[in-house]
Amino acid sequence: VSNFGQDVPTGEPARIATPLPGDPRLSRLSLNQRTTARWSLAEAVAGALAAGIPSIGLWREPVAEHGLAASVDLIAASGLRVSSLCRGGYFTDPATLASALDDNYAALDEAAALGARALVIVAGGLAVGDRDIRGARERTVEAIGVLVERAHDRGVALAIEAMHPIFAADRGVFSTLAQCLDIAEAFDPADVGVVVDTFHTWWDPDLLVQIARAAGRILSYQVSDWITPLPADTLLSRGMMGDGHIDYAPITRAVSDAGYRGDVEVEIFNAEIWAADGGDITATLTRRYAELIAPWL
Amino acid sequence: VSNFGQDVPTGEPARIATPLPGDPRLSRLSLNQRTTARWSLAEAVAGALAAGIPSIGLWREPVAEHGLAASVDLIAASGLRVSSLCRGGYFTDPATLASALDDNYAALDEAAALGARALVIVAGGLAVGDRDIRGARERTVEAIGVLVERAHDRGVALAIEAMHPIFAADRGVFSTLAQCLDIAEAFDPADVGVVVDTFHTWWDPDLLVQIARAAGRILSYQVSDWITPLPADTLLSRGMMGDGHIDYAPITRAVSDAGYRGDVEVEIFNAEIWAADGGDITATLTRRYAELIAPWL
Repeated sequence: VSNFGQDVPTGEPARIATPLPGDPRLSRLSLNQRTTARWSLAEAVAGALAAGIPSIGLWREPVAEHGLAASVDLIAASGLRVSSLCRGGYFTDPATLASALDDNYAALDEAAALGARALVIVAGGLAVGDRDIRGARERTVEAIGVLVERAHDRGVALAIEAMHPIFAADRGVFSTLAQCLDIAEAFDPADVGVVVDTFHTWWDPDLLVQIARAAGRILSYQVSDWITPLPADTLLSRGMMGDGHIDYAPITRAVSDAGYRGDVEVEIFNAEIWAADGGDITATLTRRYAELIAPWL
Repeated sequence: VSNFGQDVPTGEPARIATPLPGDPRLSRLSLNQRTTARWSLAEAVAGALAAGIPSIGLWREPVAEHGLAASVDLIAASGLRVSSLCRGGYFTDPATLASALDDNYAALDEAAALGARALVIVAGGLAVGDRDIRGARERTVEAIGVLVERAHDRGVALAIEAMHPIFAADRGVFSTLAQCLDIAEAFDPADVGVVVDTFHTWWDPDLLVQIARAAGRILSYQVSDWITPLPADTLLSRGMMGDGHIDYAPITRAVSDAGYRGDVEVEIFNAEIWAADGGDITATLTRRYAELIAPWL
């Protein structure tokens, strides 16, 4: 059970106070918008600034709600970095591949306008009745090959994200960092790289080896926890760092040893957290981040 | 949504009639007791015979309810083969390791008495507050090393089962067939091997390669489907073959090509199926098995 909203991770006393804005431990922290899903873009920008979070991971839907041009101005005026734009991809269904490519072209244009270094790419799942996961993977590889020229032109890298195998059927047919690197390595590291996400990959026995292999290709490092018992809606099953079973030290050290110097996004899909006050969420996540992640960067 | 209880897999017409007892397509089919969880051991034996299923995968709890000696007699009189006994393992928690080993010794004795070729080994998950998945894996490897002498003496092989990564935290810290083979290969193939289970491993990009590597070490082949949307209780999220996203042809062919000539267990944890009439369950599973599995053996 997540104990979000309380000050104590499961079985452990709170060990540090909430960091204040300007705390150097927060210098690479990014607030992924989905962590404070009830906040509009303007609220998320204000909330990040108030909490001393210097970077933001944007999602296309709230940017569109705010208007792209207005979002560009808002971000520029805020001084926040844009660690990534979520998300492109969804190339697995032949029936929607053409429209998916058009949508990804638009996403690259938006990422460039917003100053996002990377567009997060989620492969997509199996269409209804589709049992050919290998075919779905091949279509995704081909689509990335089609997309890369526009990505290069826009100066935005494609960040391929491995999804937890729980999502292999309905969300992302790439389950391991190794698979994503197999695709990315066919391209210039400036154009195609990978996301390392603790929730999706913590179970992988090959994770640390693959993170080392990913040196020069890590475009985003995202953190959230694996909590048990798993919430009924598995899409919303991610926990606050410290509430679950992930040991952030070895993973974070490996990401750092692989040369990653970018921002660290806290991205949590969780109905209980979403129901909380945004300021409480950012207070908890800055504290947990400073305690559990920052020391290993 | 599972459409179990109807005659048609999702989006497809029923293509074959329910096989009759004696149908050669059922010659390697085994009814894992958990598929008809409401049936007692006596009912499961009678139900398997009535449906023309020549083998049974036993669980320790219903065997204990029936009494071990009476179970041995019942099985012998039935003429059913015992494809496996579920289950041993659960070695990850240092606080319960000693009692777990005792329990596994007892399970090996029971397997030998019942004529089961293999005892299925599930590693176990992380104890409350434990974030050291590598340590939990190491403890499991050590425990298997301790257990193997008794297994050898009893003529029962330890069948290490990879669990889907959805269960890495709370049920099984080995997520891939490769991990299980890494352990098994330190021992004689007569004593330690692996389970290939479609539900747990279908997503694995390395699956077919690892099945080939497992030649001579496959002790059990278990089938059920991955259905979407995933039921709220993920422990009960397995579907009837044909209701989900798994393509059985390449996996079953690979298992056969690896030289496996043993029984194929249908093992389905699903509340909707458990609520159904046992005879309806065996009718559906023999039909689906004959259509989707048997042709590729």
